Amino acid sequence: MTDHPLVGIIMGSDSDLPTMQGAIDVCREFAIPYEARVVSAHRTPLDMAEYGMTAHQRGIRVIIAGAGGAAHLPGMIAAHSPLPVIGVPVPSKALNGLDSLLSIVQMPAGVPVATVAIGNGRNAGLLAVQILASADPELLARVQAYKERMAAESRAKNRIFTEM
Amino acid sequence: MTDHPLVGIIMGSDSDLPTMQGAIDVCREFAIPYEARVVSAHRTPLDMAEYGMTAHQRGIRVIIAGAGGAAHLPGMIAAHSPLPVIGVPVPSKALNGLDSLLSIVQMPAGVPVATVAIGNGRNAGLLAVQILASADPELLARVQAYKERMAAESRAKNRIFTEM
Amino acid sequence: MTDHPLVGIIMGSDSDLPTMQGAIDVCREFAIPYEARVVSAHRTPLDMAEYGMTAHQRGIRVIIAGAGGAAHLPGMIAAHSPLPVIGVPVPSKALNGLDSLLSIVQMPAGVPVATVAIGNGRNAGLLAVQILASADPELLARVQAYKERMAAESRAKNRIFTEM
Amino acid sequence: MTDHPLVGIIMGSDSDLPTMQGAIDVCREFAIPYEARVVSAHRTPLDMAEYGMTAHQRGIRVIIAGAGGAAHLPGMIAAHSPLPVIGVPVPSKALNGLDSLLSIVQMPAGVPVATVAIGNGRNAGLLAVQILASADPELLARVQAYKERMAAESRAKNRIFTEM
Amino acid sequence: MTDHPLVGIIMGSDSDLPTMQGAIDVCREFAIPYEARVVSAHRTPLDMAEYGMTAHQRGIRVIIAGAGGAAHLPGMIAAHSPLPVIGVPVPSKALNGLDSLLSIVQMPAGVPVATVAIGNGRNAGLLAVQILASADPELLARVQAYKERMAAESRAKNRIFTEM
Amino acid sequence: MTDHPLVGIIMGSDSDLPTMQGAIDVCREFAIPYEARVVSAHRTPLDMAEYGMTAHQRGIRVIIAGAGGAAHLPGMIAAHSPLPVIGVPVPSKALNGLDSLLSIVQMPAGVPVATVAIGNGRNAGLLAVQILASADPELLARVQAYKERMAAESRAKNRIFTEM
Amino acid sequence: MTDHPLVGIIMGSDSDLPTMQGAIDVCREFAIPYEARVVSAHRTPLDMAEYGMTAHQRGIRVIIAGAGGAAHLPGMIAAHSPLPVIGVPVPSKALNGLDSLLSIVQMPAGVPVATVAIGNGRNAGLLAVQILASADPELLARVQAYKERMAAESRAKNRIFTEM
Amino acid sequence: MTDHPLVGIIMGSDSDLPTMQGAIDVCREFAIPYEARVVSAHRTPLDMAEYGMTAHQRGIRVIIAGAGGAAHLPGMIAAHSPLPVIGVPVPSKALNGLDSLLSIVQMPAGVPVATVAIGNGRNAGLLAVQILASADPELLARVQAYKERMAAESRAKNRIFTEM
Repeated sequence: MTDHPLVGIIMGSDSDLPTMQGAIDVCREFAIPYEARVVSAHRTPLDMAEYGMTAHQRGIRVIIAGAGGAAHLPGMIAAHSPLPVIGVPVPSKALNGLDSLLSIVQMPAGVPVATVAIGNGRNAGLLAVQILASADPELLARVQAYKERMAAESRAKNRIFTEM
Repeated sequence: MTDHPLVGIIMGSDSDLPTMQGAIDVCREFAIPYEARVVSAHRTPLDMAEYGMTAHQRGIRVIIAGAGGAAHLPGMIAAHSPLPVIGVPVPSKALNGLDSLLSIVQMPAGVPVATVAIGNGRNAGLLAVQILASADPELLARVQAYKERMAAESRAKNRIFTEM
Repeated sequence: MTDHPLVGIIMGSDSDLPTMQGAIDVCREFAIPYEARVVSAHRTPLDMAEYGMTAHQRGIRVIIAGAGGAAHLPGMIAAHSPLPVIGVPVPSKALNGLDSLLSIVQMPAGVPVATVAIGNGRNAGLLAVQILASADPELLARVQAYKERMAAESRAKNRIFTEM
Repeated sequence: MTDHPLVGIIMGSDSDLPTMQGAIDVCREFAIPYEARVVSAHRTPLDMAEYGMTAHQRGIRVIIAGAGGAAHLPGMIAAHSPLPVIGVPVPSKALNGLDSLLSIVQMPAGVPVATVAIGNGRNAGLLAVQILASADPELLARVQAYKERMAAESRAKNRIFTEM
Repeated sequence: MTDHPLVGIIMGSDSDLPTMQGAIDVCREFAIPYEARVVSAHRTPLDMAEYGMTAHQRGIRVIIAGAGGAAHLPGMIAAHSPLPVIGVPVPSKALNGLDSLLSIVQMPAGVPVATVAIGNGRNAGLLAVQILASADPELLARVQAYKERMAAESRAKNRIFTEM
Repeated sequence: MTDHPLVGIIMGSDSDLPTMQGAIDVCREFAIPYEARVVSAHRTPLDMAEYGMTAHQRGIRVIIAGAGGAAHLPGMIAAHSPLPVIGVPVPSKALNGLDSLLSIVQMPAGVPVATVAIGNGRNAGLLAVQILASADPELLARVQAYKERMAAESRAKNRIFTEM
Repeated sequence: MTDHPLVGIIMGSDSDLPTMQGAIDVCREFAIPYEARVVSAHRTPLDMAEYGMTAHQRGIRVIIAGAGGAAHLPGMIAAHSPLPVIGVPVPSKALNGLDSLLSIVQMPAGVPVATVAIGNGRNAGLLAVQILASADPELLARVQAYKERMAAESRAKNRIFTEM
Repeated sequence: MTDHPLVGIIMGSDSDLPTMQGAIDVCREFAIPYEARVVSAHRTPLDMAEYGMTAHQRGIRVIIAGAGGAAHLPGMIAAHSPLPVIGVPVPSKALNGLDSLLSIVQMPAGVPVATVAIGNGRNAGLLAVQILASADPELLARVQAYKERMAAESRAKNRIFTEM
């Protein structure tokens, strides 16, 4: 596997990091090279455009973007980049992320954003791995193994009832 | 009053025109020079950035932006421009514009969008006129006169009850 | 710049002050003369009408009104005044400000309120500054400078990743 | 019973009449003197204030107010009048009256509005009759009789099943 | 004024008391005789029916009913009684009272419930007083005096700004 | 199988019949004796109480109740009857049945209502059959057969793609 | 009564146990044999299918399934089993269980889930008992007795007012 | 490019085809081999499990799944398959697809679904193409070209204003 980042993880503000940490964790668990950055659609729109237009030229193959409220970062990155863009609705203060979700998922025809659950940075990371694995049988096998470990952990939780 | 446009009216798609026509009508009624254009945040993001960054240099003093669904145009224009930006949530098919409203109004600190009611292009036009009138006593007097005409029309509607 | 207030900041109750403080802060940062008052549409409706009808005569050029729940203050001030009125939906206890937002933004044709995000008094202040700046090139340049400072602060947040 | 109106039925616009007709019908069915008027909180705020402040002086004992969207009429009338005010949320175009409902019902402590179902002018009329009947045993007996007629009509609907 | 209760205040559970206390307080402040009881539509439906059918026979003139979640108490009391019934949506755990509000306010034609804001027992009490005052000029004058006190208190809050 | 009704199908109004017809159809398809009636919680509350208290004495084993808006019928029947009660949220005009759903499903501890999807009378019928089948192996086998027919019909729909 | 479990209580994760404990408690109170297990639709889909397909063969007569968020467990169990399935929407972090509720209750025609209130495991247990009682007069009598105890407890709460 | 399908497009019912046709169209436009099938999570759960477990073995690299209401198909396929799964919320009758959206997007940690906008089958197709393109520079160039064509079409819409 290459050393340059394959997954670009960006967020509108450093306050989004607790949500996005899950995506970073997954990349580390699967040993996928990644980069993480604060790129704000609203405060640094030109940096954002630059990021979107050049990421694939630097070898990035999937972009994960998290934002809250009127969350424009994932959709704008998708406007600029030909790569698949995964959107993470960051929970917002007043509306708990319902605004973030609708701002990210309801994209018009032509510019999709692959949206995951509110606050679920981990699933964004896993989806990025699955996208890479779609073209990589070895990685696909590791995704399968991961699913089997999850199943085993889920089954193990039944001991709570035998101990009750 | 000058001849170059003072109000820039932009929309994500020509399908938004029925909603945005109200803003155009108001500019005409008040004889405010305006321009109207399709500028899509998602399909022509660089044109959009250019529009936002240069509008004030061309003498535009207020921008009205309408969009539906994951409506990013008003907020992105606000990211690029120092001018006041008025957002019009265009009614969307599945969620009737609730997604458009939240995508436009819930902007983060630092980048406000002056949001009007779902589908209410006319009010966006009036707000633009009021913003211009804020620095123009003659125009402010015309806004007052407009409000008085509305009041008179509202009172006249009482004839429905005398005729009942 | 004049000494009499250019921005009128009003709120339905002193309990709205934590939300509206952001608007006050912005006026101070930009050295815009302002006034702040409790004016309740429901408890002092005649004071409210008086405020709306006379603000522009006293030199006020933009009004910021915050209220929560069945938030009628911004819309009623807009009914009485020819000035642009900015509405701030104050978070409410049961519905987190969704009621405040809809009560403020969904104004009928003829009487717009420039609505900002739930709880975002700061953005109301910035929008007021932008409205004043629309007719004031020097102030517009300061808005641009403010946006550049925000961009720089946003870029600086990337050190969290280099330090990680 | 007196000849001057006991119930004041007001609405923000003549377009609200289809919804408010139900309230008028009930007053006629119970032979309660009423008046009906267009009084707009947003377009004729001073007329509205005047109406609220003087209705009880003219012998009005209950006010029914209908409005849609950012529906401020019922709450503002309640601010001006000591009388019980019944609010009718008129269905709105984009949000089907959810905005109207929240704008009317979520009043702050001190200024209640007796809110009925979205679009249910008939129930506003019945509630007004019940309020009058609360102090009028003869009218209360007629309310009882009305309820018994409704019960009989409801029971009669069972013939659809015997005919099936 | 009589000694027997004029206002019946009922609630589905004693856990609703913190919300309903506001209604009790208002009755005490206005020296209106009242009674308060736990009457559950779901746990004691026959007691509830009995209460609804007999309240007016005991001299009760207005009923205030509070309930949360699938809040059936106000509507069912309204089904049984010819009196005006005021409904208080008690905040619910999962949905913060949105379910309570819709369950109370959306009554079918023929059986209105005068609904107040979520959690606003105080406004239910004031509405009951206003209903009694509708037929009682002396009480109406006290409602006016109450509104004037509220106005004075609201105006007094402006000292926060002079002290700032 | 007995001849007296095992399933009681009730609805608040004959206007609910199009929704409830699905429940009737299922009873006929499975040859389950049923009865159907209009019983209104709001217009005939004593008939409703009587129905709830006596249904099990007449051999009814499951009750299906449909209602819309502030839909109290299912919950009130559940208050009166020890039998399992299935609630069908009938689509409402303004809120499309969201109010009906919350009014039916959000029952307090102690009085459950088995709620099915908005407008889905057919599923209420199937659930009633499954409840009867829970104690009747022959009927359970027929439920299994029904599920197999559904699977076969679903598979058959793939011909649309072979014909495309 | 038999010794093998009659009620199967399953949940997507052990974190759902606090919600589901109420169902377990009810089974114990009514001395209904039950089993409790973690079975995840998403992490152990084959175990889930197996559980659904075989539960009735092991003598289970009702299944209670709890899950949160995109809550697929109740509906998928209903797809696999001919038994009545009760769904418990577990409160979710961002949306407080509204997503759980809609994911469980809005099942398509042919595959009902008997949905109870958000977070109300106790009601799921009671509904299971009522389903068993539907074919068991002795158990039905115990359900009646339970309802009478609830009524007595509700009446006893009135002492709070006599002590006030 | 291979001849066996790379994209599996499945839907819960043939009534979902109008929504899913957009995904089929995109595959044809980009000449991506695909297969389309009706696979119901609720009516044919074993076929669904089989599809999910074997798709990657047949060379499928991305799965698009559409469903409405309690939309379990995308999430259950994601439970069974290691491949990236794209979910399309099909508009539902009562809630316009809000239930479909939440049922698809709010997946728990470990099992992501890449959700697109309500009713937007076309975007699901484009996202599938982008996922394939992530590992295929030639296809990525065609995605870029597609975006440029969209931009050109968007710009061309400005003729409506020159013709006005």
